[in-house]
Amino acid sequence: MANETFLRACRRQPAEYTPVWLMRQAGRYMKEYMAIRERHTFLEMCKTPELACEVTLQPVKAFDLDAAIIFADILLPLEGMGIKLEFAKNEGPQIGNPVRTRKDIDAIRIINPDEDVPYLLKAIGMVKAELDGRVPLIGFSGAPFTLASYIIEGEGSRNYIHTKSLMYGDGGAWKAFMEKIADVITVYLKAQIAAGAQAVQLFDSWVGCLGPDDYREFALPYTKRVIDGIKNTVPVINFSTNTGTYLDVIGKAGGDVIGVDWRVRLDEAWKTVGHDTAIQGNLDPVVLFAPRQEIRRRVKELLGMAGGRPGHIFNLGHGIIVGTPVDNVKALVDSVHEFSRR
Amino acid sequence: MANETFLRACRRQPAEYTPVWLMRQAGRYMKEYMAIRERHTFLEMCKTPELACEVTLQPVKAFDLDAAIIFADILLPLEGMGIKLEFAKNEGPQIGNPVRTRKDIDAIRIINPDEDVPYLLKAIGMVKAELDGRVPLIGFSGAPFTLASYIIEGEGSRNYIHTKSLMYGDGGAWKAFMEKIADVITVYLKAQIAAGAQAVQLFDSWVGCLGPDDYREFALPYTKRVIDGIKNTVPVINFSTNTGTYLDVIGKAGGDVIGVDWRVRLDEAWKTVGHDTAIQGNLDPVVLFAPRQEIRRRVKELLGMAGGRPGHIFNLGHGIIVGTPVDNVKALVDSVHEFSRR
Repeated sequence: MANETFLRACRRQPAEYTPVWLMRQAGRYMKEYMAIRERHTFLEMCKTPELACEVTLQPVKAFDLDAAIIFADILLPLEGMGIKLEFAKNEGPQIGNPVRTRKDIDAIRIINPDEDVPYLLKAIGMVKAELDGRVPLIGFSGAPFTLASYIIEGEGSRNYIHTKSLMYGDGGAWKAFMEKIADVITVYLKAQIAAGAQAVQLFDSWVGCLGPDDYREFALPYTKRVIDGIKNTVPVINFSTNTGTYLDVIGKAGGDVIGVDWRVRLDEAWKTVGHDTAIQGNLDPVVLFAPRQEIRRRVKELLGMAGGRPGHIFNLGHGIIVGTPVDNVKALVDSVHEFSRR
Repeated sequence: MANETFLRACRRQPAEYTPVWLMRQAGRYMKEYMAIRERHTFLEMCKTPELACEVTLQPVKAFDLDAAIIFADILLPLEGMGIKLEFAKNEGPQIGNPVRTRKDIDAIRIINPDEDVPYLLKAIGMVKAELDGRVPLIGFSGAPFTLASYIIEGEGSRNYIHTKSLMYGDGGAWKAFMEKIADVITVYLKAQIAAGAQAVQLFDSWVGCLGPDDYREFALPYTKRVIDGIKNTVPVINFSTNTGTYLDVIGKAGGDVIGVDWRVRLDEAWKTVGHDTAIQGNLDPVVLFAPRQEIRRRVKELLGMAGGRPGHIFNLGHGIIVGTPVDNVKALVDSVHEFSRR
């Protein structure tokens, strides 16, 4: 690899500067992305390796990022599981047959990645060839709780009533469902790794609707099952949001790197997780709408909280927001390098 | 007062059992409420003292609650400030002229409650007469950050881009705006207290979009300004959500009672806030969709975390959700009393 800073940070090895990549770095804030998006649906982009490859590389070409992340959606494994997925125009994805009963759960299939997501594996291979070792490529999946709650609710949710009703009301069904989902995610990530992904991230964007005890009982065992299942392959980033009150429990699920949002100070988060684990984060994505000098000031402050300790991967606390000024993204990436260079 | 358990808990005095009330206890989950709502708009209900009074009393009559809370909306003070407020059918409130510039901020007026919210003050008087000392009546307001962000965004928001852009980009304008809002809230709460409210709650439902350092700089001074402004009148409940990672900072804003959501264990939250302050919370509202025995189990568990220490007010971690089974609300209230009776 020409640039090993990201992989070194995953392993808490010293690097010449703090590596940075940004969640949803390939996205609608870039005009290059929109030029493609205007001619194709989101799913078409995911399912056409040439397009997914091109879009994956756009931010790596535009900014001095230290990792690429494959362009995909956390819901791509659903079709192979027997779940009907639709992306309505200008709206989030909708599931035609949300899972609500034990019978629904029993009908779910474990995917075969070669048959069910061949386009993704092909896109990973193409990106790897194009990158030619310039920066590492990250694969990813939704974490078990986030994927399960999407499948149960059928769409974005405010209160997760169906999910928690199943969880609280039928513990056996919940366990069976989560074990299946964990197994799907495990084969899905293994296939991405076999295709060339050099690290993987689990996105648990919705798990913060659970309190600490519910997380421990209803989510942790299944995230752990996934992480244990891909042990000794590539570094794993365990990312979640709204879980800052129980990062100690999140850490118990595993992961070489714990990804945190901005609701917790990075120094405190790292202390809670333990310095024997790497940490990723955690600038508020809205800071990218602030004046340039404020962005630089906050980058410096955040790097100060990381204290120069090996094992910090700079990132936002959640994905880049549509409308983010591209020049500010460049300023962010460059200032991370400038201020952290040793 | 026939029932002083709530007020005693606010002051951390022993009571014969743990008092319980529920945020949004007057609401669409009750058929009595819907019978009125079907014939009137939400704003009509707020602005007609007879209706607001009736709706306030509905849950107190249906359940063995230890406090009433006046039926109102956190956005009621806006009209007097010169903000145009509309409740679109089946949608959240919309603001016609969201505040974005220093000029907008300068145009905001401090309200005169007697002229701007006479209906609310009249409703409080009517409720007090009807309750006749049965249980205390709680008044409330949005907290400065939550109110400010609503006025700036103009509607519900996902990322608070306009709010944070002003905050990060023009600190002077932010300060001027927040001081004005704090002064509005102070006179608004003072008027409710003068009209008969025996405790008040500040709802900071949106402030959890801020990290701890931003809360300290951009929200805390103004919440503190409000609480200091009504000191030595009635107990103040300082409630916020998604702030579990910095309850120590929240506590510094003041309040006789700190209200917390379910993302933090109650025992840990109380320890963080300090046992010299009362605590309110924090059952996940979705637990009310669970089987009866699971609700009872969790009530018992939560009371166990409070440890029988005077100063716990049982509540949900956020408002009751539409669709909540009424029988489960009754089971919750009764089991709090049953399990906590000393």
